[in-house]
Amino acid sequence: MHAQTEIEVRTTGRGLIDVTGEVAGWVAEQGVGTGLLTLFLRHTSASLLIQENADPDVLLDLENFFARLVPDDPALYRHATEGADDMPAHIRAALTQTQLSIPLKAGAPVLGTWQGIYLYEHRTAPHRRRIVLHLIGE
Amino acid sequence: MHAQTEIEVRTTGRGLIDVTGEVAGWVAEQGVGTGLLTLFLRHTSASLLIQENADPDVLLDLENFFARLVPDDPALYRHATEGADDMPAHIRAALTQTQLSIPLKAGAPVLGTWQGIYLYEHRTAPHRRRIVLHLIGE
Amino acid sequence: MHAQTEIEVRTTGRGLIDVTGEVAGWVAEQGVGTGLLTLFLRHTSASLLIQENADPDVLLDLENFFARLVPDDPALYRHATEGADDMPAHIRAALTQTQLSIPLKAGAPVLGTWQGIYLYEHRTAPHRRRIVLHLIGE
Repeated sequence: MHAQTEIEVRTTGRGLIDVTGEVAGWVAEQGVGTGLLTLFLRHTSASLLIQENADPDVLLDLENFFARLVPDDPALYRHATEGADDMPAHIRAALTQTQLSIPLKAGAPVLGTWQGIYLYEHRTAPHRRRIVLHLIGE
Repeated sequence: MHAQTEIEVRTTGRGLIDVTGEVAGWVAEQGVGTGLLTLFLRHTSASLLIQENADPDVLLDLENFFARLVPDDPALYRHATEGADDMPAHIRAALTQTQLSIPLKAGAPVLGTWQGIYLYEHRTAPHRRRIVLHLIGE
Repeated sequence: MHAQTEIEVRTTGRGLIDVTGEVAGWVAEQGVGTGLLTLFLRHTSASLLIQENADPDVLLDLENFFARLVPDDPALYRHATEGADDMPAHIRAALTQTQLSIPLKAGAPVLGTWQGIYLYEHRTAPHRRRIVLHLIGE
């Protein structure tokens, strides 16, 4: 069987938002034992990431790394009409993921103990981001 | 049901080629409503990427970013026998994606308005690149 | 049909370990012709990668690139309690992949001639890493 839904996540500027609970909740409602869950983000200035969920400093260090690697410096980019943070957001998205697939075992994603599923907002302003969840199961 | 095909894309040196139309065309022919489409690139010096499809400058800025991040400088690499652009191509491929999976809804990939599917050629010479398209649907 | 297993890979510090043979062996035992194989790594300080399998220098150059890009310099990170290599490991994982999906044709992954599947260990100490293999086939 295939099941599909779309969730909306409201972001508050640059940073990572843990969506593990909302995703796992929807999966649990589908009553599937073994299967494959796919998350697909419908945007090019945000991304998806599996990251450590224990120490919040990891998420801050990650953001600082990307801010150094991809500076918000208009002199570096031709594409500047949507703001100094827009082209860096597209580059950050290219360096991370737009899609994640996670196997299910006994009805739950097989995430490791320290793994969370994150939406990574790369724009400085708040946005509404849509993620399609697709489940193939038996 | 599973459906599978392989497409060939001819590249003309470094840069991104929009393959959205060809991929969506094949998907439409399969007559599937809901499903999961997977693209797999059979090469290690090119990659796949979802990127913005509105402003061509985004693609140029992306290429300029990777050219700065991964210089074609033989002094930086041991692997140099296949040309100064070959090892940078492998690194660029590691930083982007070899595979993409996209859910289908009502027979079409759930891409956002500004999302295109791109083959990213990282070698400076033209190449023929093969992408396997795999569809699981119902 | 869905099939699933978990394999353990013992690493010996930073570097890439070819798991193609072990993965392809398990796939062959499932007796599936056409399908989709997904690998999911249950850790955030290692990753998965498709890379060139011909010249071992490619793997060394790749490691050198990441060592330059993400220095083991405690002054750069807040998260330092697990060792100077831990936060860089999380960043390297964000820049590569936690999950790979590969179509199967005639019972085998459709890897190109020069493609291997690698576990990329980003910690300097040896670790035991678990990869979930999930197969949807017919």
